[in-house]
Amino acid sequence: MSEPSAHGATARSDAAARTALKRCDELAALSAYEGRIDRYFLTPEHAAANALAAGWMRDAGMTARIDAVGNVCGRLEGAEPGLPALLLGSHLDTVPDAGRYDGPLGVVVAIAVAQRIAKRAASGEALPFALEVVGFSDEEGTRFSSALMGSRGLAGSWDDAWFDQIDAGGVTLREAFVRFGLDPDRVGDAARNPDELVGYLESHIEQGPYLEEADRALGVVSTIAGARRFAISVHGEARHAGGTPYERRRDALIGASHAVLDVERIARAERVIATVGAMQAYPGGVNVIPGRVDLTLDLRAEHDADRDRAWDLIVDAAEKRCAERGLRWEATETHSAPAVAMDPALRAAITDGLAAVGDKDPMVLFSKAGHDAMAVAAITGVGMQFVRCHDGISHHPGEAVRADDVAAAIDAFEASVLAVAATYAG
Amino acid sequence: MSEPSAHGATARSDAAARTALKRCDELAALSAYEGRIDRYFLTPEHAAANALAAGWMRDAGMTARIDAVGNVCGRLEGAEPGLPALLLGSHLDTVPDAGRYDGPLGVVVAIAVAQRIAKRAASGEALPFALEVVGFSDEEGTRFSSALMGSRGLAGSWDDAWFDQIDAGGVTLREAFVRFGLDPDRVGDAARNPDELVGYLESHIEQGPYLEEADRALGVVSTIAGARRFAISVHGEARHAGGTPYERRRDALIGASHAVLDVERIARAERVIATVGAMQAYPGGVNVIPGRVDLTLDLRAEHDADRDRAWDLIVDAAEKRCAERGLRWEATETHSAPAVAMDPALRAAITDGLAAVGDKDPMVLFSKAGHDAMAVAAITGVGMQFVRCHDGISHHPGEAVRADDVAAAIDAFEASVLAVAATYAG
Repeated sequence: MSEPSAHGATARSDAAARTALKRCDELAALSAYEGRIDRYFLTPEHAAANALAAGWMRDAGMTARIDAVGNVCGRLEGAEPGLPALLLGSHLDTVPDAGRYDGPLGVVVAIAVAQRIAKRAASGEALPFALEVVGFSDEEGTRFSSALMGSRGLAGSWDDAWFDQIDAGGVTLREAFVRFGLDPDRVGDAARNPDELVGYLESHIEQGPYLEEADRALGVVSTIAGARRFAISVHGEARHAGGTPYERRRDALIGASHAVLDVERIARAERVIATVGAMQAYPGGVNVIPGRVDLTLDLRAEHDADRDRAWDLIVDAAEKRCAERGLRWEATETHSAPAVAMDPALRAAITDGLAAVGDKDPMVLFSKAGHDAMAVAAITGVGMQFVRCHDGISHHPGEAVRADDVAAAIDAFEASVLAVAATYAG
Repeated sequence: MSEPSAHGATARSDAAARTALKRCDELAALSAYEGRIDRYFLTPEHAAANALAAGWMRDAGMTARIDAVGNVCGRLEGAEPGLPALLLGSHLDTVPDAGRYDGPLGVVVAIAVAQRIAKRAASGEALPFALEVVGFSDEEGTRFSSALMGSRGLAGSWDDAWFDQIDAGGVTLREAFVRFGLDPDRVGDAARNPDELVGYLESHIEQGPYLEEADRALGVVSTIAGARRFAISVHGEARHAGGTPYERRRDALIGASHAVLDVERIARAERVIATVGAMQAYPGGVNVIPGRVDLTLDLRAEHDADRDRAWDLIVDAAEKRCAERGLRWEATETHSAPAVAMDPALRAAITDGLAAVGDKDPMVLFSKAGHDAMAVAAITGVGMQFVRCHDGISHHPGEAVRADDVAAAIDAFEASVLAVAATYAG
């Protein structure tokens, strides 16, 4: 590798960072809507992103394929063919009106590192394991109600009940598989055998302000908070806005608005993080009292018990409000993941990587955002590197990273892979 | 006429009511969505409803045409051709997921009365004026942001700026005109000359509970409350739900939820009626803090000054809440109508109509809902009859009327037309 010491650093790193950033731009252009970034699971944009990433993987010296759950997977053999693989990856799908780095940066950093490892192998310094890069197909859960479907497919924790979920256009997940060219009955083929895995490393933007506040390029992740997500409906009765006196109204939007404010009040008091991200009133006529409001709730905390207690308090408050108004509260859990700790050895390898670029006492962060690593942790150890992002902005077009930070991320991530190799027992 | 005294009444009335109810069912089947009622301005369903109503008008002995703003208009000449016309009517468009009587009942009652008047004319008892029935094309304002566009077109108060409004699918009103077969540049042709009008009478379901509570079939309208409608956006910043601490959030949905509750609190205190009917959070990802929320506000009161004061208080409260949260409140008035009083002579004719079916001391109601009569009042006097509806339910599939009430409504409305004729000076 390129002796990245006090980072700033080599022309090779700068060029790799420029390529990585250009690739994030190329992916950003693959969107359902002009002028913004919307790339969802099993859409034409997803297929195009997979094709682009597969091309980069092949250019890096890897073989590439699309697996049975729509992940794009590149493989570089180690010292001999068929060795267990160290996985590197992140996701290629986005939230609505997204930024360009949440997910894609981790994929392009992984490809940049694989390219370097391939060069080392070509000059006789092959790793004692294979290296695979995965561009996960669904992490955000934007199109259907479940999240992490790409990594759960890879981890063998796919749930066939998900196939009946429908998107906003009424398309079932099963039908979306077929339209994408995948066979729903073979989704199990995406599951990886733990014996064939060495571990999983992921590079990701922080999606929070703490690295920037501490003036650091990179960070080491300790734990990923476990999120629970709920699809909630408040049921009332649609009636004419003019002719219905207040005492006869069962206005679902009143109940839903109380719920939004109660959620924030309870979450702050309980020191957990809760967000109502989607909310829509039906039927939605300007002169009709809303008969139903649908909303989503995303709830996360460092400790699962805190999160679960907050949910109980939210339900109590909401049901009380609804009872006062003649409304009905209906909540379905659409996603649940326990908090996931990084594997000690892989966390040490991430730490070694940061040390290799000059950060000997790295900042350790707990991830409030979920990541593919959470699902992969079910079958192999995981480690994560965080990259500073501007103003902590994420899930927004304003996501931004520094080119020198990306250069450091690539160098450090490469050093982490080599650190894993150095201690690998085979 | 059929001597409707203490109502119960003649076989002719019962048959007319059955026909009217059957026609409401036929119109209900003309919907954008299966299994519910959604019939919006300038849609294929609207064209089909116009064609159906035009057929009924011709069967009743009228000529029928579609005017330049998409209203279906039937005409029965009076004692000689070309006399000024008494207009009868209501609207054929609906709110989303509507009931079947709000609007359509008034149109089919008017056609039933025109059929009787045509029979009288055929036996030499023609009226001293022409009779016209209008099925208005847009009253609810569901598809575009303005309401009463059909009656405003007829009243000559059309505003060409409306042509740039877009529907949920991005179609402009101008384009919708063209697709419907109408010429936007000729919309002025729909405007009627006040000199050619005798007045306007409308029958409509009450859309409130007061007639039913008083055990009365029909009522006389005194005044129509003037509504103001606003399209409101609360602007914040979309960010990642997990990684963004509360102190850095500018969550538009928190501001919007406060607004919904403030609107109700202020409206109840000020004794006006305010409804947030539509509300949607953007971008709408389950793990994204809402960066923008769009909502609508419908505000109405018996006295315009009360309504306007309530709006000022709502804006004050909302701007204060938004300032506290780093949000921006943006409101555009999409509709405004002053309270409209019924014409004394036409109100007397409506009262005479109720007396003719046995209700000598009718209940007088102030209409909290808007009606086409509001727009028509700009060019001629208006009078309105209310018909009892079950449980005050309207703008909901549960709208229901009694067949005997519809029979009484037809008989009374016919008597009202004859009362106008009896005092008509020509």
